[in-house]
Amino acid sequence: MRTIGLGLVLALAATSAGAQVPNRTALEKVVAERHDQSVRMLQEWIALPTIAAEKRNVAEGAEHMRKLALDAGFQQARIVQSGGVPGVFATLDAGAPVTLGIYFMYDVKQFDPTEWQSPPLSGTLYDRPGEGQAIRGRGAVNQKGPETAFLAALQAFKASGRKLPVNLVLVAEGEEEIASPNFPTIVADPEVAAALKKTVGVFIPAASQDADGTAGITLGAKGAVEFQLIVGGETSGKYPKNDIHSSNYARIESPAWRLVKALNTMVADDGHTPTIDGFMDNVQPLTARQKELIAQRVASSNEATEKKNLGVEQWIDNAGFQAASERFLAMPTVNIQGLVSGYTGVGGKTVLPGRAEAKLEFRLVPNMTKDEVVTKLKAHLAKRGFDDVKVVVSGGYGPNQTDENSPFIQAQKRVLDRAKIPYTITPRNAGSWPGVVFNGAPLNLPTGQFGVGRGSGAHAPNEWFLIKSSNPKIAGLDETTMLFVDYLYEVAKLGRK
Amino acid sequence: MRTIGLGLVLALAATSAGAQVPNRTALEKVVAERHDQSVRMLQEWIALPTIAAEKRNVAEGAEHMRKLALDAGFQQARIVQSGGVPGVFATLDAGAPVTLGIYFMYDVKQFDPTEWQSPPLSGTLYDRPGEGQAIRGRGAVNQKGPETAFLAALQAFKASGRKLPVNLVLVAEGEEEIASPNFPTIVADPEVAAALKKTVGVFIPAASQDADGTAGITLGAKGAVEFQLIVGGETSGKYPKNDIHSSNYARIESPAWRLVKALNTMVADDGHTPTIDGFMDNVQPLTARQKELIAQRVASSNEATEKKNLGVEQWIDNAGFQAASERFLAMPTVNIQGLVSGYTGVGGKTVLPGRAEAKLEFRLVPNMTKDEVVTKLKAHLAKRGFDDVKVVVSGGYGPNQTDENSPFIQAQKRVLDRAKIPYTITPRNAGSWPGVVFNGAPLNLPTGQFGVGRGSGAHAPNEWFLIKSSNPKIAGLDETTMLFVDYLYEVAKLGRK
Repeated sequence: MRTIGLGLVLALAATSAGAQVPNRTALEKVVAERHDQSVRMLQEWIALPTIAAEKRNVAEGAEHMRKLALDAGFQQARIVQSGGVPGVFATLDAGAPVTLGIYFMYDVKQFDPTEWQSPPLSGTLYDRPGEGQAIRGRGAVNQKGPETAFLAALQAFKASGRKLPVNLVLVAEGEEEIASPNFPTIVADPEVAAALKKTVGVFIPAASQDADGTAGITLGAKGAVEFQLIVGGETSGKYPKNDIHSSNYARIESPAWRLVKALNTMVADDGHTPTIDGFMDNVQPLTARQKELIAQRVASSNEATEKKNLGVEQWIDNAGFQAASERFLAMPTVNIQGLVSGYTGVGGKTVLPGRAEAKLEFRLVPNMTKDEVVTKLKAHLAKRGFDDVKVVVSGGYGPNQTDENSPFIQAQKRVLDRAKIPYTITPRNAGSWPGVVFNGAPLNLPTGQFGVGRGSGAHAPNEWFLIKSSNPKIAGLDETTMLFVDYLYEVAKLGRK
Repeated sequence: MRTIGLGLVLALAATSAGAQVPNRTALEKVVAERHDQSVRMLQEWIALPTIAAEKRNVAEGAEHMRKLALDAGFQQARIVQSGGVPGVFATLDAGAPVTLGIYFMYDVKQFDPTEWQSPPLSGTLYDRPGEGQAIRGRGAVNQKGPETAFLAALQAFKASGRKLPVNLVLVAEGEEEIASPNFPTIVADPEVAAALKKTVGVFIPAASQDADGTAGITLGAKGAVEFQLIVGGETSGKYPKNDIHSSNYARIESPAWRLVKALNTMVADDGHTPTIDGFMDNVQPLTARQKELIAQRVASSNEATEKKNLGVEQWIDNAGFQAASERFLAMPTVNIQGLVSGYTGVGGKTVLPGRAEAKLEFRLVPNMTKDEVVTKLKAHLAKRGFDDVKVVVSGGYGPNQTDENSPFIQAQKRVLDRAKIPYTITPRNAGSWPGVVFNGAPLNLPTGQFGVGRGSGAHAPNEWFLIKSSNPKIAGLDETTMLFVDYLYEVAKLGRK
């Protein structure tokens, strides 16, 4: 991680970047003039939430995404059917030698308006004391805000009649929030695959700055596989079809206990070590360099604040911060997202449940794959006779990992270095995004999340994204847009792959 | 079990019983004349549901119960505070040598009006094809209908200016549906305890006839203890205070897994044998006579119909009907009523839950006690280090059991024999009622559920109770009332205890 002294970092950045971007000041002026239009573009997008889990705005969301691409200057954009929520594929040919891949998600997480301070689809602008003007709305930071900043960069090129320094290939999906079950199908579309093959790498715009302005370059992400285990009258005649009077449990099997027994075989008594047969076989340990990067991040983080934000007093096994941070990135997990069976209200109710369900997810590290762990889970349960426990895989993908020294990542570093924006390099995101679709075979492309700017509340109420920053070290919407401009010129230097 | 041939059983019954009840025909006429009033009394009672779990109609329900007792001829009735929903204590001194105890519950189970064919508090009268006119409403059979039949018997005495052949002591509670947490306090009231001590036994009115008219005498009931196991930020700093992003499970303990691990120690891998240390120590096996009684019941039951009604295809361990029926009455259980943790909606959601709760209940057989099993559960968890698993006992009591040959039960048999109503003797109800409060120390009284008539849907939507029976083998409201009249005269013969 690099640190800087006090000062107007982003103002300095412009000067430094100016040397790399022809007539940068002119573009910066266009971005500023188009500020209100960009904010409206984001507000309109927030107002149209595509929610895959609820099948909400499926066709409308895809069509809106297609139009956003065309409006930003992509010469062609088409909807790609996948069996689920469709994808959008768009290309912008600038006649440049280098082609950059961009991944967008246009869906958002579910929301409960009663938990919000303003309507979650209103895109309300408000003041965050000490930070500046922000926009509040579902999708604000995850991922429509950062994506809008990128589109605003393209709009600025278009408005000023300037040619892009690189060609672009955009692939957008509307099922990221349900673990991208059909994204491989979209990317396997022959035209999409052929276009992506020409790119130097694929990135997703992300708001990476923390409260003190430190940005981040992320070299990979864990994979995630979401699945449910279901036991009950629907899976075996041993269990009642509905909840019945609990006295019957003396003569009728309980799906809730069966679920407990199946789950119990999947994690050790410590409550966290996976015990599914063969689950850990392909786990790659962290390298010395990865541990070093983690140590840098640990040194610059406040452990007490992090614990407080997470609402915990200790890490697993009462580990120290470095060990816990290594676990965070290195350990694959078998997480219980939720349990639901029988009576779930206040107190008790004398029923024998007719159904029990555990919602789970695997988080995978290199070199695990989705197919591998799903196959192993099923074999594990079958071997132990749990043929009455139904496994429903609702989505997922493997991990992605890109080399720190790849030209694609080096370009990101140069942009931040030149802008004098401090940043950490995170060897792997403990969360997940389907970069493996680009990063794995057959494309084997470098991938990454990249960007500046700031926001929070992904998946939570009152999600927000900074629009006008009052802190010179932190980028607002327009500064984030300009950083993407700088990045496009930097990528242009990579030469044809 | 005794069986009878075809014929107008209940019509015959009157003749036979007439010899035992002075001027029975006159009383029967009063009961018939008061039929509409009795139905209205039941409808008004159904319209005022006391629901302990919801603290609904606590004061109103107790006062209504007190008035019902006074209206029926009890000379005094008072509300007994207990710390929870209050009880009602009433006495009727007829100057008779024998005193009978009666237990009423005036509370009902929760209900969801959307699941009902008519408003659950309306007490709608409707036709049940092949059965006659029934009343539909929450509490209709459990227990307001049978209790109304008993009160109607007292009303008939009062209306005809006739003295009761026995004195009565009534104890009513309003927390039966939450496992009677404060009922011992009510019965321990010095005046209540002193009054009960003079009784020959305590019974609760119950509609025991099945579809072919067979009634039942029940010699006991399992005990029930309801409790919840809770793990999460509220029980230990190891867990997050709220649901947080699931990627954190790589470094933070999961309350859901901890709950699974605690539960797993409580029942064997077969999913039903309790493994809490010492839990089975005091379990009395069934006697040869109890097995014989079960065999009689098995012989007269249709296994296929029973399985169909329960929505299952097999019993535990694929047992035969006799073995399963013995288990039903003899086995204590550790039932999971419900599981709730984290995300419980459709599909999945990437959270690490901040809380996990299992709702459980023990069913106890002689000679287990509530205090014993609660102590053993806590010791079991403590021994295994589960000090972060909170045990919340929400209610419960031990089993009750009365000797088949006790004069109290013999009187019930004689009433049914004389009425030529076929009946089974059930050695123990697999369900529970707090008879142990009378049956255990220090009162050590015989207890039982007793009555004819028919109904179903306790705890379920569309609960009903038969008002006018079209089947001569099955008692409607008035015939049930008259059976209670017969019973009072039979109890009078027992002599002072």
